[in-house]
Amino acid sequence: MRDVAIIGAGMTKFGKFLERSLKDLAREAVEGALQSAGIDKSQVQVAVVGNATAGLITGQEMIRGQVVLRELGIGGIPVVNTENACASSSTAFHLGWLYVASGMYDVALVVGMEKLTHPEKARSFQAIGAAVDVEWVQEMARRAKEAKARAQAEGGQPAFQEGAGERRSMFMDFYAAFARRYMERTGATKEDFARVAVKNLYHGSLNPKAQYGGQYTIEDILNSPLVVEPLTRLMCSPISDGAAAVVLVPAEKARQYTSRPVLVRASVLLSGKDHGPDEPSITEEAARLAYEKAGVEPKDLDVLEVHDASAPAELIIYEELGLCGEGEGPSLIRSGHTRLGGKQPVNTSGGLIAKGHPIGATGVAQICEIFWQLRGEAGARQVEGAKVGLTENGGGMIRGEAAALSVHILSV
Amino acid sequence: MRDVAIIGAGMTKFGKFLERSLKDLAREAVEGALQSAGIDKSQVQVAVVGNATAGLITGQEMIRGQVVLRELGIGGIPVVNTENACASSSTAFHLGWLYVASGMYDVALVVGMEKLTHPEKARSFQAIGAAVDVEWVQEMARRAKEAKARAQAEGGQPAFQEGAGERRSMFMDFYAAFARRYMERTGATKEDFARVAVKNLYHGSLNPKAQYGGQYTIEDILNSPLVVEPLTRLMCSPISDGAAAVVLVPAEKARQYTSRPVLVRASVLLSGKDHGPDEPSITEEAARLAYEKAGVEPKDLDVLEVHDASAPAELIIYEELGLCGEGEGPSLIRSGHTRLGGKQPVNTSGGLIAKGHPIGATGVAQICEIFWQLRGEAGARQVEGAKVGLTENGGGMIRGEAAALSVHILSV
Repeated sequence: MRDVAIIGAGMTKFGKFLERSLKDLAREAVEGALQSAGIDKSQVQVAVVGNATAGLITGQEMIRGQVVLRELGIGGIPVVNTENACASSSTAFHLGWLYVASGMYDVALVVGMEKLTHPEKARSFQAIGAAVDVEWVQEMARRAKEAKARAQAEGGQPAFQEGAGERRSMFMDFYAAFARRYMERTGATKEDFARVAVKNLYHGSLNPKAQYGGQYTIEDILNSPLVVEPLTRLMCSPISDGAAAVVLVPAEKARQYTSRPVLVRASVLLSGKDHGPDEPSITEEAARLAYEKAGVEPKDLDVLEVHDASAPAELIIYEELGLCGEGEGPSLIRSGHTRLGGKQPVNTSGGLIAKGHPIGATGVAQICEIFWQLRGEAGARQVEGAKVGLTENGGGMIRGEAAALSVHILSV
Repeated sequence: MRDVAIIGAGMTKFGKFLERSLKDLAREAVEGALQSAGIDKSQVQVAVVGNATAGLITGQEMIRGQVVLRELGIGGIPVVNTENACASSSTAFHLGWLYVASGMYDVALVVGMEKLTHPEKARSFQAIGAAVDVEWVQEMARRAKEAKARAQAEGGQPAFQEGAGERRSMFMDFYAAFARRYMERTGATKEDFARVAVKNLYHGSLNPKAQYGGQYTIEDILNSPLVVEPLTRLMCSPISDGAAAVVLVPAEKARQYTSRPVLVRASVLLSGKDHGPDEPSITEEAARLAYEKAGVEPKDLDVLEVHDASAPAELIIYEELGLCGEGEGPSLIRSGHTRLGGKQPVNTSGGLIAKGHPIGATGVAQICEIFWQLRGEAGARQVEGAKVGLTENGGGMIRGEAAALSVHILSV
């Protein structure tokens, strides 16, 4: 397997763009990536495209990549469409890396794209709901409904609030349950979760491509509307549209294109499995494999983008990636270690919470942020002298664990 | 890149199975493939899953592979979900091949699966309709509606029959247009198209896994209900459910598992592009690349599975694959050359017309048929002494050409 380098990156601003099409979003990201790489579209030899919800939001299934790329005059090459829920485009990146690492192709274009907003807001939540075992969820809903009927017949209170899931993503219920368990295990408080949101919204304020950002206080976060205890709205990633793209070439040829290539040191993709209580989580396992492959340790990382779909997740991920010991997530966020100016800034882009979370675009957007950080192109949010970065991207959920989990380590 | 071999194959019978779930279909195919390979599920190192319509038929998007594989106790490995319309699972096979050819993994499971039937038949056709540029089709429909209104205002006949697409796949309109052009160019007749259906339905009668089959006459085919001139119902692939799976390992290790491995000599995937009038079609281009890579010529092929979504397509594909010269498709089918007992039997499984066309399963099912033929395990439809086989699988359509096209060459 050959070493692989990223030579260009492009992305749209993330946000709610009801008036923009997926083609339009993808065009901006792809043209940005090609321009950044200094190559023409005719030089692209293979394309891998990640998207999660177009089928459910726009009806466009099956050939989503070809539909957007033909508009740009890109055709006659292999185009692979891949899905892995919120990890769809880190999966696409992994495959683009594989095409180049294997020696099969010399120039791979990887695109992540999502148009998640819909005039009927419930449709967006319904679409996100396809990232679980739909049959299982339907069965659970049926049982809950029966339990409610029984409780009512016995004169008790219903434990199940019908229709609640239509007003928010069911994932926030999962995340809230994880957060409550994490609080019990580590003593983390709601203030600690708020600290994550304060940090990421601050970082977002420095990123012109972020959906949200600003100078918030812990109280601002805690006082925002409750989603599910202990999560408030500002602790949760929003509904977003956007696209991101990168160009990959063999490392040995990268300097033909740019004086500042970014090396892919490890590309790991795993799916969840059933665990014994003392076995590592799939994130821990993916991180271990990535560190081993890249020959780096957690302490070597200068900058990270991680999957903060909700604020508590970021603390759990600190521990899973080995940035701190077990139960030390709360003290790490309190210390400022992961804030810009700290030793290992996390989610300098604003993360999913502030930059936004157009789910099929998120994986490549994380790669874009690390690419810009390692090239010194991150503007007001630049981590000085960053040499090694990591991305962690999770997708979907089966039996309480990510269905797909991807870790990439990049360096200059 | 290492040589890769197939060591096991499994598939369900194809048919209309409203009562069976996608999990159930996939289970049968995967268990069949593992058993055929003589390996346990714990030995699978990576899985690639192709499916096209689950999101639109069942609501299960994004993590379709994980949902079916976790039921079987397969997890903790990379699972990639891929779509390319009717070529979804030849794309999955191509990626499984790439994982093994690159040296990254030693045991890859590839699954193609589709549950296309729906209690409301129109839903199946709507789902298939996502294999084109949906936005473009909506625009065409809007224009056609305007034209109809104008024609009516002027007292003329409407050229556009509203709702016609709801009773059949719009692809049959495309195929009919291709067929009419082919008739003009080559002098092919409706009887020639009927001969393809007679052949494939005969082959299907010899395949226990085929949805349809029997001894039909040319008249039977011509007298079946008209779909779109010149296509009758028996010339068209049906709506089907089914799943197929194969196991891939490095060729150098294949004999640890089986005395009869089947080598993957070429794995080519391309997308369509805009052509000049004298440029080769994407199928011709993919075939040329595959022959070059495998070091074989069309005359070396002993058995082929090709994408006969409608009968005329098979004649066009004969020419594109070089089984005969330009315009010689009709004489080739008349000669019996491609019928069992002929020199180069095509679609011994029954092809899409008779075996059935559960679209995301078709690509791997074609591979299964060639695998069984080359191992001498094809029963009553065995091609004696077959050593080299080819599969050709097309998916989706943009501007009159396949959006995805895959050619594989296998040999023993």
